Amino acid sequence: MTRVLVCLDSPYEFWRFGERHTQQLHEAFPALDVVPVQERDVPQHLDRAHVYFGWNFPAHWVGHAPHLRWVACPAAGLDYLPTDELRGAGIALTRGLGYHGRPMAEHALGLLLGFSRGLFLSRHLQTRETWWQERLAHSFFDLHGETLVIVGCGEIGQHLADIVRALGMQVIGVRRNPPQREATGIEWMRTDQVHEALSRGRAVVNLLPATQETHRFFGRPTFGSFRPSAVFVNLGRASTVDHTALLNALDTGRLGAAALDVVPSKPPPPDDPLRHHPRVVLTPKTAVFSHSYMDEAVAFFERNLHRYLTRQPMHGTVLPLHDGGRHVR
Amino acid sequence: MTRVLVCLDSPYEFWRFGERHTQQLHEAFPALDVVPVQERDVPQHLDRAHVYFGWNFPAHWVGHAPHLRWVACPAAGLDYLPTDELRGAGIALTRGLGYHGRPMAEHALGLLLGFSRGLFLSRHLQTRETWWQERLAHSFFDLHGETLVIVGCGEIGQHLADIVRALGMQVIGVRRNPPQREATGIEWMRTDQVHEALSRGRAVVNLLPATQETHRFFGRPTFGSFRPSAVFVNLGRASTVDHTALLNALDTGRLGAAALDVVPSKPPPPDDPLRHHPRVVLTPKTAVFSHSYMDEAVAFFERNLHRYLTRQPMHGTVLPLHDGGRHVR
Repeated sequence: MTRVLVCLDSPYEFWRFGERHTQQLHEAFPALDVVPVQERDVPQHLDRAHVYFGWNFPAHWVGHAPHLRWVACPAAGLDYLPTDELRGAGIALTRGLGYHGRPMAEHALGLLLGFSRGLFLSRHLQTRETWWQERLAHSFFDLHGETLVIVGCGEIGQHLADIVRALGMQVIGVRRNPPQREATGIEWMRTDQVHEALSRGRAVVNLLPATQETHRFFGRPTFGSFRPSAVFVNLGRASTVDHTALLNALDTGRLGAAALDVVPSKPPPPDDPLRHHPRVVLTPKTAVFSHSYMDEAVAFFERNLHRYLTRQPMHGTVLPLHDGGRHVR
Repeated sequence: MTRVLVCLDSPYEFWRFGERHTQQLHEAFPALDVVPVQERDVPQHLDRAHVYFGWNFPAHWVGHAPHLRWVACPAAGLDYLPTDELRGAGIALTRGLGYHGRPMAEHALGLLLGFSRGLFLSRHLQTRETWWQERLAHSFFDLHGETLVIVGCGEIGQHLADIVRALGMQVIGVRRNPPQREATGIEWMRTDQVHEALSRGRAVVNLLPATQETHRFFGRPTFGSFRPSAVFVNLGRASTVDHTALLNALDTGRLGAAALDVVPSKPPPPDDPLRHHPRVVLTPKTAVFSHSYMDEAVAFFERNLHRYLTRQPMHGTVLPLHDGGRHVR
């Protein structure tokens, strides 16, 4: 009997695998043994697990999992998982696809509009100035008709693109390998064209994953290509941004404003200038907050579990499943 | 020769009738005499004007305008204009249509997302708390799947509805006379069903005009029908809201947050509790800010001027043009 070990705990209900999710998987796969456990109890259950569904998988667990064939992680970015060790042990790895885009698009759009309509500034001035309309008249901009550049524009970025295009924005999507088809309404550019792309963007949303190539991708030269007063939103990884260069770009006026959902240290130190800059908005890794997060993550996992059991290629594959003999149904 | 008097001045370039707009009307209507003037000079020009295009028209000007047939105002709400006096003098009145919806939809959506994603709260906490993710986890909500109620849902509201429906919201539109056709994707309800509508809205946007019937429409009984923690956004008129009842609804938790683009006194007094409530965001009548405002207002006026000259019914008619003998081409 295939045993599925689940370790998805969280202080927040919407990020937690609950009783109803166990029930849902039992009903969908009566022949499976679905075992939800706390993180501290994972090692003692690993020796009999074939599938693991969880946020974390430290490298040293690999040696305790002789029958493990597949690690399914609901997150979108798996840079913190031990890919090399999993590959070495012949264990498949999948990430979550399809349910991060919606909340992240709402988050990104809220931040863009917060700056473009002067809402953060207005909230600040309402307790301090007699009448602050003129201040806003000199700093607001319309999103309609402007260009948004999405760097690292994959599935999440394309969701954002759909939304902002409904507001009348043009979208430039930057990625290593742009898709060939044109049906998305996005103007695609390769990563080596990023300076040209940035020079056209009224706003830039960064969704780059953390890799060796993306380390400090946004540094002094990149910010130097931005349009003056451009707005920068980082919903990707903090390692892709040189924050000294970012603060410098804000102070020279190259950047009009920045919103960061990710920062180099979590929590940032109390005296971190990123906390106190008047044109920086920090959100504490909440871009992916959604009350339907776990429901959608479990539905995605359920579909992949069906593919696993029927030997079809899985969605969100980072390391493919080997057709080895270890697969026990 | 038909003389068109234009008085559209503003401290802001985007709300000002400029040289290029005069040029545009001259080119479109070479036979017309287009005369832009400052407000203080209007009375001395009124005696020879047939058409007036401007923000203001005080009642006492009517007696100085023997040949005036049409007052065209670019604004969306004309409650501050002397409708009775204009009607008495047989002068037509039109308002602006078609170009307020876009900026107001961006503004409303920015305010909704600012609350739903916890962005205003996050901006406040980033300088004050070590890590404030949990605070946001307990207060955020998804717009996707939720219901927005738009009260006074005319042309502007329908523009907003289109945008939020792209985000996956349901929209209930409340108006005195809902349209018969269903093509808008809006669930229509009459004003006398507003309590039922409000009880279903995660957020409510007020776009009511100022009339006798709408005076303090949002008062204690109306707020009493809101869903607990609902968000209220007023982009209509301040007179349609009882602000004591609004503050009370915030303090009892009936309202989760409120954003007001209009307040009873402009500017609000320094100690106005609306300025200082932690869950109130004020914007200083900036919802309709758009850098293309005057360009679009002039284009709309130009189309109506053509209709005026060719005796077709004009768009945005508040008081219709009479087929009197005063019409001089």
